[in-house]
Amino acid sequence: MNEQEISYIIDTLFTVFSMTLIIFMVPGFAMLEAGIVRTKNVTAVLTINTLIYAVASLMFLLFGYHIAFGDFGSDSMSKWASFLFQMAFVGKVVNIMSGGVSERARIIPLIFFTVIVSAFIYPSIVNITWGSNFLENSFLSLSMYDLAGSTVIHSTGGWALLAAVLIIGARKGRYTKTGAIRVIPASNVPLLTLGAFLLWIGWIGFNGGSVGSISSKETANTVALTIMNTNTAGLSGAIMVAVLMYFKYRKLDITMILNGALGGLVSITAAPDLYNIYVPILIGAIGGSIVVFGVSFFDRLKIDDPVGALS
Amino acid sequence: MNEQEISYIIDTLFTVFSMTLIIFMVPGFAMLEAGIVRTKNVTAVLTINTLIYAVASLMFLLFGYHIAFGDFGSDSMSKWASFLFQMAFVGKVVNIMSGGVSERARIIPLIFFTVIVSAFIYPSIVNITWGSNFLENSFLSLSMYDLAGSTVIHSTGGWALLAAVLIIGARKGRYTKTGAIRVIPASNVPLLTLGAFLLWIGWIGFNGGSVGSISSKETANTVALTIMNTNTAGLSGAIMVAVLMYFKYRKLDITMILNGALGGLVSITAAPDLYNIYVPILIGAIGGSIVVFGVSFFDRLKIDDPVGALS
Amino acid sequence: MNEQEISYIIDTLFTVFSMTLIIFMVPGFAMLEAGIVRTKNVTAVLTINTLIYAVASLMFLLFGYHIAFGDFGSDSMSKWASFLFQMAFVGKVVNIMSGGVSERARIIPLIFFTVIVSAFIYPSIVNITWGSNFLENSFLSLSMYDLAGSTVIHSTGGWALLAAVLIIGARKGRYTKTGAIRVIPASNVPLLTLGAFLLWIGWIGFNGGSVGSISSKETANTVALTIMNTNTAGLSGAIMVAVLMYFKYRKLDITMILNGALGGLVSITAAPDLYNIYVPILIGAIGGSIVVFGVSFFDRLKIDDPVGALS
Repeated sequence: MNEQEISYIIDTLFTVFSMTLIIFMVPGFAMLEAGIVRTKNVTAVLTINTLIYAVASLMFLLFGYHIAFGDFGSDSMSKWASFLFQMAFVGKVVNIMSGGVSERARIIPLIFFTVIVSAFIYPSIVNITWGSNFLENSFLSLSMYDLAGSTVIHSTGGWALLAAVLIIGARKGRYTKTGAIRVIPASNVPLLTLGAFLLWIGWIGFNGGSVGSISSKETANTVALTIMNTNTAGLSGAIMVAVLMYFKYRKLDITMILNGALGGLVSITAAPDLYNIYVPILIGAIGGSIVVFGVSFFDRLKIDDPVGALS
Repeated sequence: MNEQEISYIIDTLFTVFSMTLIIFMVPGFAMLEAGIVRTKNVTAVLTINTLIYAVASLMFLLFGYHIAFGDFGSDSMSKWASFLFQMAFVGKVVNIMSGGVSERARIIPLIFFTVIVSAFIYPSIVNITWGSNFLENSFLSLSMYDLAGSTVIHSTGGWALLAAVLIIGARKGRYTKTGAIRVIPASNVPLLTLGAFLLWIGWIGFNGGSVGSISSKETANTVALTIMNTNTAGLSGAIMVAVLMYFKYRKLDITMILNGALGGLVSITAAPDLYNIYVPILIGAIGGSIVVFGVSFFDRLKIDDPVGALS
Repeated sequence: MNEQEISYIIDTLFTVFSMTLIIFMVPGFAMLEAGIVRTKNVTAVLTINTLIYAVASLMFLLFGYHIAFGDFGSDSMSKWASFLFQMAFVGKVVNIMSGGVSERARIIPLIFFTVIVSAFIYPSIVNITWGSNFLENSFLSLSMYDLAGSTVIHSTGGWALLAAVLIIGARKGRYTKTGAIRVIPASNVPLLTLGAFLLWIGWIGFNGGSVGSISSKETANTVALTIMNTNTAGLSGAIMVAVLMYFKYRKLDITMILNGALGGLVSITAAPDLYNIYVPILIGAIGGSIVVFGVSFFDRLKIDDPVGALS
């Protein structure tokens, strides 16, 4: 075994490990969304989430991967491990969108949307950012840093979602005739909590695995720092929302606190490897605050976003 | 550290990782089955699943492992890691059977059955297939390929189950007096979905770990290909069932879709390492179809199999 | 890559893997406790568990780690991985306590308690046991063996809890006016089962990771033996309780069986690496028995401990 072989083996194992954690985000998203919607829509939400994972991953295998990265090929680890890691990402873009329109979107159109996003739109965006086919050394790749997809994944999903909610409108019963907000409480809080923590754990693989290698002292440090900073931003987002909610309403709302954690996790995802260990506390706190003010802001515009995915 | 030592360490870590994923199948099975049965039977199902894991694993430690593999001993990795991986498999055979007779079997007899299967029957079957004590180079070991137990585990469990359901009969209330089928809807769809995905994730360790080593470039590629093909068959099984159900009944049934995914996963388990990346799409689709037609077929025979384990 | 580098990389990967499993204990604890309490208290319990994780981890990052271990620094693996592993432990002490007073404690005081325990009390105890600042070679470090925290974590949490329940008293409605016990059944048994198994899986990382290294044949063996013995004690605890309950009451109670498994896991945590593979069967059985008799014993003293954390 020479040095290159040892590195190849360890990075394959590391990538399989990271990919497995990302797959936990599939039930994570499903449980979060099923817990947050009204009881009558739970089954529909679970069906959509399952089909999104199945369709998006298969489309990416058949078409998307080739558009994003060209040939299957990797020298530094097994090319199949590399594919699995990329495949695990692709459903997330659609998930972000589908979460925001939950309780309103019909399944069949959403499946067609999934096919188009995972086979063509997302791979094309990856191609000009992380992929290496064309536009290398271009404006975009030089002036942008996005380790694990704050823009490539979350923002792509977010903009698609904004377009969708503007067209579809709010959930029936969300606003009264006079325009006041009707609170639609989460139907199953334990499920929602479980989902949020499965997402949190998935993020360890999402961001940690995005470093792409663990087979040198330097990359091993970067992986561990990335995971540490990712987690810190989640902690800080949750605490920030708890503090804001407590001073605004004198009560702690678990749905908002968990959304705050996820807001912190999204915020750090662009560059969890670039900061020292204290900056992510600030980034997570900003991410958490945006969730609190975002939900109020969108409600003022009568934009209804059940899982807070827009914020 | 020489080459053999590095390989020993990496394979031990890999096997511990794989074994951990398989343990996720314990709550996976429990949640799938608890979600699918009627509310009144949920607690019994959870008790049975917990005791099956506890009793089967302990019996395998005390008796089964010795019958299957002779001495504790392994040169290529820690012998304890090797044991843990095999132990994680053993409850699955009983689980497959107990799932099929759920809502009908009494706990104490099932525990005795678990003791006998995990201490003697399953280890004896392993002995003449994967084990190395006797029958090596025999008819069976030469003409059969079964990487992770399509036959050794699923078929052993399946035949035991067929015998059991023929004796025990259908659930009370499953068929009307005129013989028509009464649909018994799943009592808790989120739980069932969670369970199915925990099983899916467990399968990554189940099949990936069955390669037995990741410590060369070649085995690293085989592990990653195995996991990729396993996952692909699951995707394809789910989609196939969704398509069949949509054209047959114009509706998407999440319970059947998830059973389709599991059907695809079972089908690929014999040889996930032998095919190129496109064949598993076909294998999974066949596995998924068998679930759809199997449930209809068994219902025609008045064989009641709540979790679709027979198909 | 020299030998020291390979070892550094593998131990970093191993520690990140172990830490991830411990994080599964956060939803594990939350689901266990949410499933066991009365429906009206579920949301409060989930809020407390989420905030404990967030607050305890952040306090440990800001203050606790420095008190326990001095500088961030580790030669044998990435110092960030080493921090993550220690951080994952810290919430557990508070969890053990908060579980025992669940349905009674108010959130805000519990958060202050969390701050104090995770920033100061727990780190100080770690400092004089596992930490290396002072008291090295002292009475305590020479005469005590505690691999993964039977004393440092579980006993610290347990004593804090005993003090708390003595002050707070039993849950309203737990005892009738004549002093008889009113059984408060678990509100959600599937959730409780899921939680127990997530804890069980987390224990693999908790105890396995506590070995601290996997990068030699010897430590690889110790890690695998530790995980095997940990699991065996859990199996044995569950079976012991099932047997005791069956002969005492002629029924199997899943809540008690799972508590028995956890009792077995706690009992083995002090020294899962020191025994041969059969001794943990005895240790787990003792741990399981203590749960059964402990619950009766505390009920006689009118000490109400919903999750059996004291036993």
